[in-house]
This record gives sequence, structure tokens and C-alpha cells, in this order.
Amino acid sequence: MSNRQIQLAARPVGRIKPTDWAHVTVPVAGPGPGEFAGRTRMISLDPAMRGWLDDRPSYLPPVGIGEVMRAGSVVEVTASNHPDYRPGDHVLGTFGVREYVVSDGSGVRKVDPSAAPLSTYLGALGMPGMTAYFGLLDVGALKAGETVVVSGAAGAVGTMVGQIAKVRGARVIGIAGGAEKCALLTKELGFDAAIDYRSDDVRKALRSEAPDGIDVYFDNVGGDILDAALANLAMHARVVICGAISQYNETEARGPANYLALLVRRARMEGFLVFDYVARYAEAMREVAGWIGEGRIKVREHVVTGTVDDFPATLDMLFRGDNIGKLVLKLT
Amino acid sequence: MSNRQIQLAARPVGRIKPTDWAHVTVPVAGPGPGEFAGRTRMISLDPAMRGWLDDRPSYLPPVGIGEVMRAGSVVEVTASNHPDYRPGDHVLGTFGVREYVVSDGSGVRKVDPSAAPLSTYLGALGMPGMTAYFGLLDVGALKAGETVVVSGAAGAVGTMVGQIAKVRGARVIGIAGGAEKCALLTKELGFDAAIDYRSDDVRKALRSEAPDGIDVYFDNVGGDILDAALANLAMHARVVICGAISQYNETEARGPANYLALLVRRARMEGFLVFDYVARYAEAMREVAGWIGEGRIKVREHVVTGTVDDFPATLDMLFRGDNIGKLVLKLT
Repeated sequence: MSNRQIQLAARPVGRIKPTDWAHVTVPVAGPGPGEFAGRTRMISLDPAMRGWLDDRPSYLPPVGIGEVMRAGSVVEVTASNHPDYRPGDHVLGTFGVREYVVSDGSGVRKVDPSAAPLSTYLGALGMPGMTAYFGLLDVGALKAGETVVVSGAAGAVGTMVGQIAKVRGARVIGIAGGAEKCALLTKELGFDAAIDYRSDDVRKALRSEAPDGIDVYFDNVGGDILDAALANLAMHARVVICGAISQYNETEARGPANYLALLVRRARMEGFLVFDYVARYAEAMREVAGWIGEGRIKVREHVVTGTVDDFPATLDMLFRGDNIGKLVLKLT
Repeated sequence: MSNRQIQLAARPVGRIKPTDWAHVTVPVAGPGPGEFAGRTRMISLDPAMRGWLDDRPSYLPPVGIGEVMRAGSVVEVTASNHPDYRPGDHVLGTFGVREYVVSDGSGVRKVDPSAAPLSTYLGALGMPGMTAYFGLLDVGALKAGETVVVSGAAGAVGTMVGQIAKVRGARVIGIAGGAEKCALLTKELGFDAAIDYRSDDVRKALRSEAPDGIDVYFDNVGGDILDAALANLAMHARVVICGAISQYNETEARGPANYLALLVRRARMEGFLVFDYVARYAEAMREVAGWIGEGRIKVREHVVTGTVDDFPATLDMLFRGDNIGKLVLKLT
């Protein structure tokens, strides 16, 4: 049996090109002693993946040329020499973009397909959900009654940030691209307002929707939208730096020209990585699962069905803004 | 008797021009009921003054066209109808760039010329000293053993930041312009290292002087130096935004391109204004005065002697980097 996998062929400069990937077939390996083998069912696609391709110091080493692309995925165990895993188990891990997986269980967690759809373990109950939860509540230190603005609001993290903020009693404004996404935010997900950055003047719209200023700005995009938010901070605001998708494909990133608003507004801008909160994931997942169960949080997922060969095109959807909610690739 | 004063004549675009000021003579007023009158002895010159000239929302209203330029100063009382002030008293306040002052005492504080030179009440024991103290210890949350980097290190705030950090057990690296300033930092003020941004590659020099990264970066300058510091942060670093003198005369400010280092390093960047700490000034002044008395902090002042007509040229020294330590204009 053969194992199809996607490897990094060349370091992308700016936007990723198809030739930056290699589609490779290798033999399937069986599980060795203490290992299990499994079949990939769902692959996560995340904006952060773009950063993993650059050869510069970051929170994880860059994916090497010729290495299988790093990705979180849900795998169904098919054979096991590991005491903790049995065929039929579903497990979550950073297994990479490949059809078949062999693992010794390090960094692997079992998931329960009867409790939630597999995709949700990559989204609301996975890294994006945890990112939203800890970024908003811990780094952003949100208090009830405050005004929250989130960019990339229709994405995997943004949809969760806005809904968690509503659960916690905030007024929530989402920034997203296009009327469809904006309608989703206000009509389905309970956001108080949505700003379409493709057609609105974001700075003016924020002034109008948040006349007393923004208390917590959760930034997934960087660039002009970050500057517009900085121009509208309330006193003692918290700017949570989660990502900067507008900058990831730029060969020369640009910084927020309005950063001196931090001084005028006695505000702080803080970065974080969800991995630092791993000890508290279980607690947060229980709480988020509870909110989902009560219908207070709606899970939005964008499931593309295909093969690992569809990974590059599916990843590009994130940078075109084509997805609504968590983007996953479901393998047939 | 006539009262010479400096008024804002036009809003500067970029660098302040001589024609942006009006040198005006008005009659001297005597003190009315409940007021005192006095003669200006020392005028403070501060980088923040540039921001007060721009017509945009900030932490203080802009100085109006035709208004006397806002400035902190020390005044000697010459006549008084106010029960708390007597001729011969010295008082500190935001009296503006004028020879003679009339005040009802609001926002005024007495100072003791026998305890410290008058200029020191505008520097180490004044706003710059308080800015250094609260910015470093409160916003920066400095802990003993950490590495502190301060830009504008030979200025009024920078000299204090570095010396307070040394008192508190930090390793201290100063960034300043020119060999003379750098020598002052390491040879006289006890800094562990100094980087000359005019001749050194600041990013590389920081990597070499702070190989484990910067724990607290106290920024007075913005621009390239802020980016160099962001590229060298330690995990959980604090970036204290105090000022951005490199940007004040730019018609288009630029932001820190490396701000995503905040994410990689789980760091925060925070702005503050010293006025928010006014309730704690007395405590801080006692502590700083104690350190000065013990010889652990050396006061550096750059005193220009002249008249109020010398204010514009003296202010420009700050933007040329001509001063070492606190710049004051002593009126003859």
C-alpha cells in the first residue's frame, strides 16, 4: 500500500506557489513495537502554517525542505502495538499532511467521535477554540460590559472569540470581508455589529459602532485594520495579538503606525501562544463544550472533501478569505 | 514692567520652524485676590512638547495657535495674595514659556531650593524622574537579575531609567547617539554597556550584549531602534512605550515592523503616562532623593542660560540630540 504525502519543496517568497510543494508517494510503514498506525481522517488548515514555512526563528522550527508539511489532524487507529490505543480509536495530533500515520503516542490525545464531530476537535474544541478562549479571557482579561472587537471574525478563531465574548457579557463587533460573512456574524452568531472591511471605512465604522472606544481588540489580521482599531481604543485597552494574516505573505511586514495610541490610551498590546496554556485545555474544553451543548455557541466549519493532494489549494482559501469558520480537509 | 512670552504662531509640519513661534511682549499683571505672582527661574524642555503642537486627540489638548507655549517651570514667588505662598517661595507648575507668572495655585507644588537644585525638580525629582521610576518599575515590572535596555539613554528619562534599574539589580544596556554619550553611560552612570546607534548595528549589538534577550525594553525613540529591540526580546518581555522622539517630527509615523515578536516571545508592549501616577509621586520622590543622597544615582542636567527668547532654539536641541541629561533653560 502506498502513502501519499505533501512535502515542502521550496521556501515560498510571498504567496505560496504550487511548485513550493511536492506531492510524494512513499510506502506505508506498519507500526513498530510500542507504536500505532492509522489513517488520516481530517486535516486542519491554519493561517499560522504560512509562518512555519519561513526560515526564521519563531515559536516552532520552520518546516524543513523535503519534510512532510506540519499539520494537526484527526487519525483513526488501524493497527496498534501501543497499550493505550486500539484499532477504531480516534486520535488528535500533529501528524502532518499524509494519508497514513505511524506514531509512538507522543503529543497524541484521544477524541470521542460520539461526543462531537471529528472536525470540531480541530476547531471549536481544538486549537482555534483554545486560542479564542485564552486569548480573550486570559490575555485580553475581558470583563462583562466591555466592548470587544475581533478581526478575522468569520474565521475559526474569530467566530469563537465573538461568541465567547457574548457569553461573558460583552458588546461584540466583528470585522470580516464581505456581506455574507458579516450577515453570518450578526444574524447567526449573535455579534452586535459587523464591519465589512472590503466596503466600509473600518476606522470610521469603529468610531460609530464603539463610540466609547474598544476595551479588547483581538487581532488576527494586522495591517490597516490593526491601525484602525488602535485609533479607536478605550483607556486601558488590551490589544491581543493572535495573528496577522494580512502580513504573512508580505515579503516586508509593516508595523502598526498608530502604536503610540498605546501611550495616549495607557493601553497594552500583548502576544501569546495557545500552546502555553496546554495545562488548562481540559478545563477550557469542558466549558466551551458546555456552551455548545446549551446552544450558546454555534460551531461553524468549512469542510472541504478531498485527498491530501488538495491540501495546497485548500490552504490557499485561508489567504483568499474563502472560508467561513474553521477550515478542514476531510479525506475521502 | 513687560512680560516676554513665547506663543505658538503656526502648527509645525515636521520639524518646528522659527516662524512657528511668536515672541510677544505683554504687560505684567499683578496678583489678583487669592493669587500669587512670580518670576520664572527654570523652564523644562521635553520631547513630549512636540506632540502638544499637533492638532489631534491626545492625552492633553493641543496648544492653541496664539496661546503661550505649555511648559513646566520653577517660579520664584514675588508677590502674593494667596495664603499658602509667600514671596521667596519656589513653586513648580505648568506655567508656560513666559517671564512672569500669575497663578491661583491650582496644580502648583512648592519645592525646597535647599534640598536640591531648582533644575532637579524638573529632572530627576520631576516629571522625567517619575516617568523613569513608574515606567520601569510599575509598567515594566522589573525584577532583579533581568536585562534592561533603554533608548534615549543619555536623556532626562533614559539616564534615570538606567540608574534606577541598576539600583534594582538589573543588567543595563543603554542606546544613545555618539561616543561621548556612550562613555557617560558606562563610565559615569554605571550602565553595563552602551550602544552607539550612530555607528553600531543596533540589532547585532543587542544580540551580542543581551544574548539571553531583553526582559524590559524602555523605549523613548521608536523607529528602527524599537524594531531592533523587538528582534531581541526574551520570553515574556515587557516593552514600555514612553516616547518616540524619532517619529515626532515625521509627517507619517511608522510602526514597529517587528511587532509580531510580541507573539513569538509572549511579550507585551504597553504605553503609560506619568500623570496617572500623581498620587504616588511623593513616595517615589522620597525613594529617588534617597538614592541621589546615597550617591547611587547621579543627576545629569544640561542647563542653558538665557531668556525666554532662547526657548525655540533650546527645544530644538532635543531633536538634534545635543543635550546630555535633563535639558533646562535657566532664565537670567
